[in-house]
Amino acid sequence: MKVELVSIGDELLIGQTINTNASWIGGELAKRGLLVHFSSTIMDLEDDIIQAVENGLNRSDVLILTGGLGPTKDDITKKTLCKYFKTNLIVDNEVLQRVQSFFESRGKEMLEVNVQQAALPESAIILANLVGTASGMWFEKDGKVVISLPGVPYEMKHILLKEGFPRLLKKFSVSEMYSKTIYLQGIGEAFLADKFKELENDLFSKGIKLAYLPSTGMLRLRFNGAKSNEVIREINQAIQQIKEEVPIHFYSEENKSLSEIVGEELVKQDATLATVESCTGGAIASEIVRIPGSSAFFQGSIVSYNERVKEQLVRVEREIIEEFGVVSQEVAVEMARRGKELLNVDFCISTTGIAGPDSDEINKVGLIWIGIATNKRTFAKRFHFGNNRERNIQSAVLTALNLLRCELFKINS
Amino acid sequence: MKVELVSIGDELLIGQTINTNASWIGGELAKRGLLVHFSSTIMDLEDDIIQAVENGLNRSDVLILTGGLGPTKDDITKKTLCKYFKTNLIVDNEVLQRVQSFFESRGKEMLEVNVQQAALPESAIILANLVGTASGMWFEKDGKVVISLPGVPYEMKHILLKEGFPRLLKKFSVSEMYSKTIYLQGIGEAFLADKFKELENDLFSKGIKLAYLPSTGMLRLRFNGAKSNEVIREINQAIQQIKEEVPIHFYSEENKSLSEIVGEELVKQDATLATVESCTGGAIASEIVRIPGSSAFFQGSIVSYNERVKEQLVRVEREIIEEFGVVSQEVAVEMARRGKELLNVDFCISTTGIAGPDSDEINKVGLIWIGIATNKRTFAKRFHFGNNRERNIQSAVLTALNLLRCELFKINS
Repeated sequence: MKVELVSIGDELLIGQTINTNASWIGGELAKRGLLVHFSSTIMDLEDDIIQAVENGLNRSDVLILTGGLGPTKDDITKKTLCKYFKTNLIVDNEVLQRVQSFFESRGKEMLEVNVQQAALPESAIILANLVGTASGMWFEKDGKVVISLPGVPYEMKHILLKEGFPRLLKKFSVSEMYSKTIYLQGIGEAFLADKFKELENDLFSKGIKLAYLPSTGMLRLRFNGAKSNEVIREINQAIQQIKEEVPIHFYSEENKSLSEIVGEELVKQDATLATVESCTGGAIASEIVRIPGSSAFFQGSIVSYNERVKEQLVRVEREIIEEFGVVSQEVAVEMARRGKELLNVDFCISTTGIAGPDSDEINKVGLIWIGIATNKRTFAKRFHFGNNRERNIQSAVLTALNLLRCELFKINS
Repeated sequence: MKVELVSIGDELLIGQTINTNASWIGGELAKRGLLVHFSSTIMDLEDDIIQAVENGLNRSDVLILTGGLGPTKDDITKKTLCKYFKTNLIVDNEVLQRVQSFFESRGKEMLEVNVQQAALPESAIILANLVGTASGMWFEKDGKVVISLPGVPYEMKHILLKEGFPRLLKKFSVSEMYSKTIYLQGIGEAFLADKFKELENDLFSKGIKLAYLPSTGMLRLRFNGAKSNEVIREINQAIQQIKEEVPIHFYSEENKSLSEIVGEELVKQDATLATVESCTGGAIASEIVRIPGSSAFFQGSIVSYNERVKEQLVRVEREIIEEFGVVSQEVAVEMARRGKELLNVDFCISTTGIAGPDSDEINKVGLIWIGIATNKRTFAKRFHFGNNRERNIQSAVLTALNLLRCELFKINS
């Protein structure tokens, strides 16, 4: 079964918007064992849309179109599909009511163009949009399927997850897939693949595939197999094995960020957190505060970017800085220890290092000490990342949160 | 002249990588007055590549291919293009020397697969890659052009900017475009369009087009016209007019972030900066520190997320918090004033607000006070953003930096 995507919208072609929809749909279909083999982006032009549908139906079984369903003049997808499928628009009363209450709940006036949002092709099955006003549409032709969806990412996702994917899997009797993704920090793709080579071969022989999805400072590992009791058991056993063998790196089997995991555990332990940051410049605090509800445990932070601030505000002694240097284990330990006292918290993270790209000591670029102070102990660990400033900061943020996670869960890092 | 993009790589179809190349190329071509009318993403398969080139040459004048030029087995673009254009690979000595010195300079061993990087199609013009090992290739057929480039973004960009675009403009005698982009903060697209309606009409009548490119907390406005003395003068006059009429919002006519602009001016004035942040949780500090060289002026920050930290560390008086509430003008002013003293700086930014999405006072979600203390005065301004936490934080960061910019440049905000 071949799936093809068509993204409609001039803004995607002139560099105004990056096409994240295609990537999301590709990933979600892959989880379900379906591969997108072709994806195109076209302009909001009738000829181009018809051409794309015609070519698509020649080479693919399913076409998923996104975009061009808004209420304005330049959105012509719906009308063009009516022409292609030789059908007419009729107002769907259920959809009309939904659009009306959508506007009422927001206290906004409904215009005639919005009423038109409820006029839908007679021959299409309507895929309900419960989070917006542009319905999804499902057309069939010679056993093939064309799905048209709004381009607004969360509306598109909502419709596909709720109606589109289940209907597709049923229509094509796609054997249900079992997919799980685990999240790891501080371990490279090559290292992980080598360490679990046998496990991966073993899973492969049972029809289970692994996909390594790395990004700065973290790695996602996706398991995929045709759903059966055996496959479920094998995948979960494999996850358990990895969790036990690299507990320092394995941090989640759900789509949760390290800051969420750390935050939830702090709340559970009724514990508080602060940071004292130098080279990360508030990026750890900011990553923690990104999560709603962080005020329950996060107290605050001192960003002691300047040495004087380390001395005067964090009260790291001048002698320690002079003896060991500002980028040192001793200073990282002192920053965490003093920060814990000053901000009166159970856990304090500290960072001191050289984010780069320039430095008087060029071979020290990427060298970062991360300190942790808890009610039981204070320590610091040394890391050496690369020479890219943004990636160094991002790596330090995730590494620091992961060190804290190990402390919270009593994992011997 | 019709340009078409072909992005080659399975990772783009299975949701592993978001296609940012297509967006960048689309934007750069738009600046030069060329429009991408079709863009597709295909798998690393010979048949699919040949099909894409064939179809592309039927409907477009220029095809730009990215991806599949690496040294590994799954990279088959070069070999497939040789087959399509009926040509052979021959080692290019100049390229071989460059690849060799590339490895030498990195102290890495050069493997046979790397030598193959210097084997290039006899009939292609080589587009030099000075930042990597995969050369760009330029093929011609019946007056049409196929350009093949590596998928690594900075290599692709380097080759296009240095060789690809100039050669394209020359080959198709494209009249050179003059394009300028200005950057604004705190002003909506609709408001700006309305305010400068006449200017826009006037420019349009002179062949100059405007593109509004909004993102969270900021707006880019691009001017584009066929290069002539008149067009250059008109665009620059228009920019000058906007700059004069909305100086509070207009912050750059170069591709510089607010933190870069503020940072450069602080260095020029030999002045120092600190932040005292509540709802932004260190995001302002972190945005400042993202810029290399920020240690020249940035001293540090106190993230007083918790009320107790505002009192004990920032020393905002309990009475002020109790009388006016923690989200108030008075507290924002005190935070900035105290922060300026404590961190001993020339400028201090403060924030206090409700980032959301939840709050006891739901109608206050998005309400954020931003304070500024300078050597001359201390004040705070009230802003009400939306109900999305991340966007509220991002808007507050940019708004705060823009307020500081107005102070630095003595613009009456």
